[in-house]
Amino acid sequence: MNTLTTLSDLRAARLSLKGTVGLVPTMGYLHEGHLSLIRQAKAECDHVIVTIFVNPTQFGPSEDLSKYPRDLERDLNLISPLGVDIVWNPTAEVMYPTGYQTWVEVEAMTQPLEGSMRPGHFKGVTTVVAKLFNATQPDKAYFGQKDAQQAAVIRQMVRDLNFPLEVMICPTTREADGLAMSSRNKYLSEAERKAAVVLFRSLSAAKELYESGERDAEKIRGKMKEILASEPLAQTQYVSCADYDTLAELNEIKGKALLSMAVFLGKTRLIDNFILG
Amino acid sequence: MNTLTTLSDLRAARLSLKGTVGLVPTMGYLHEGHLSLIRQAKAECDHVIVTIFVNPTQFGPSEDLSKYPRDLERDLNLISPLGVDIVWNPTAEVMYPTGYQTWVEVEAMTQPLEGSMRPGHFKGVTTVVAKLFNATQPDKAYFGQKDAQQAAVIRQMVRDLNFPLEVMICPTTREADGLAMSSRNKYLSEAERKAAVVLFRSLSAAKELYESGERDAEKIRGKMKEILASEPLAQTQYVSCADYDTLAELNEIKGKALLSMAVFLGKTRLIDNFILG
Repeated sequence: MNTLTTLSDLRAARLSLKGTVGLVPTMGYLHEGHLSLIRQAKAECDHVIVTIFVNPTQFGPSEDLSKYPRDLERDLNLISPLGVDIVWNPTAEVMYPTGYQTWVEVEAMTQPLEGSMRPGHFKGVTTVVAKLFNATQPDKAYFGQKDAQQAAVIRQMVRDLNFPLEVMICPTTREADGLAMSSRNKYLSEAERKAAVVLFRSLSAAKELYESGERDAEKIRGKMKEILASEPLAQTQYVSCADYDTLAELNEIKGKALLSMAVFLGKTRLIDNFILG
Repeated sequence: MNTLTTLSDLRAARLSLKGTVGLVPTMGYLHEGHLSLIRQAKAECDHVIVTIFVNPTQFGPSEDLSKYPRDLERDLNLISPLGVDIVWNPTAEVMYPTGYQTWVEVEAMTQPLEGSMRPGHFKGVTTVVAKLFNATQPDKAYFGQKDAQQAAVIRQMVRDLNFPLEVMICPTTREADGLAMSSRNKYLSEAERKAAVVLFRSLSAAKELYESGERDAEKIRGKMKEILASEPLAQTQYVSCADYDTLAELNEIKGKALLSMAVFLGKTRLIDNFILG
């Protein structure tokens, strides 16, 4: 396993890889969800590149960039048994040198949901992902369904900009009680951690309603809100039942739909989602 | 020579090319300047791809998109003897299908000069060039020095977004009297065509002044303006003496500088430039 920081070292190492390459872009502080992406990449590609970079441009000024958890040694120990060829861990100066001034933006699809709560977030995401794609030239790139809008936005960017690669969206990995794994779960107090299962419970209840035949999106959203409201430690930021492809909010569920939500447990903001249909 | 229109046909043809690939992106209606880029690509790369696409997103609403000259048969006849492997001539629907929503923007460097006169122009240029790079995956991409700011902007984009390719900027090809070749020269009346040499004359006079030791940028700009003003058919839009790398307007010429201008001859807008130092 080759751990590199500069772009020129990465380029040289990439050139030496023959056959197909899978990319798993991460912000580090890896959990089982990341490891499942790496295992899937390893199963489907001849070589695997993992990137670890806490991307400053996708954090808003009032967000948790400075306290976002980092532990490179721990990450490398977790990756080490998985047969990864290259770990690229660039500095912010490598990614955004003095004079940096180029941005990639996806428009309509970044407006609702996370985009409306986190202005500029997706501009940072699409820019850094475009840079990572060009730097690593993967055949397949692996992302988690946990960040549902990010997955949709990256699929759109790849289609629109003709990136010669396949975007692989992998199922959300969950704790035993259903909580979606996230590096931000470490911020939770014991009480908040217990309460956090309410996201999964509300998504499950909405899915049950859907499976019983309900297609009125407002009733589905209502069910999620009702269950979230029953948890005193949870503050709902948004709840959505949207078209899976366009992320436009639905009145009636006809095709594939995305249920999603952002909820504060104390100061910690968690997101989760289910796909219907 | 393989002439293709769809992205999937291009991808398949690109995969069959072994060795290095040179890309020459054009808007068609080729002249000797384009052909010189193709010849240089052919001399330096194992294979050459030429793209022909009049990119609607780089034209402003009041610009000449609809009347921009097009003649595919003539273009293919000109390219045919040059040993080009692939000509890609996508439709606007292939490049910007329904739902298209992703844009690549270079910021500071697109503000002055052409950017200030043609709002949105460079957003269209960088987006289409990023798409062409991803679609054709060249090792080297060839552009003319005639579009000096475009060349600088594309170099910046390639550096910023980590595109794995080399940008090759080739000298401006000129008519016998010094007029820079341009597809737009065909718009000129006989009298305008004669008057158009004033761009080259003013750049030459400014260069002479520089070579005689003048380093005051305002005096260099003044010399260009004075000569342009002496031609009654010419209306100067801007004249610039800027830093070669940042395109910031200079007070004093210290390192490499870019002299550039945009001038109307009747309704036809022409640009030209010289590099000093």
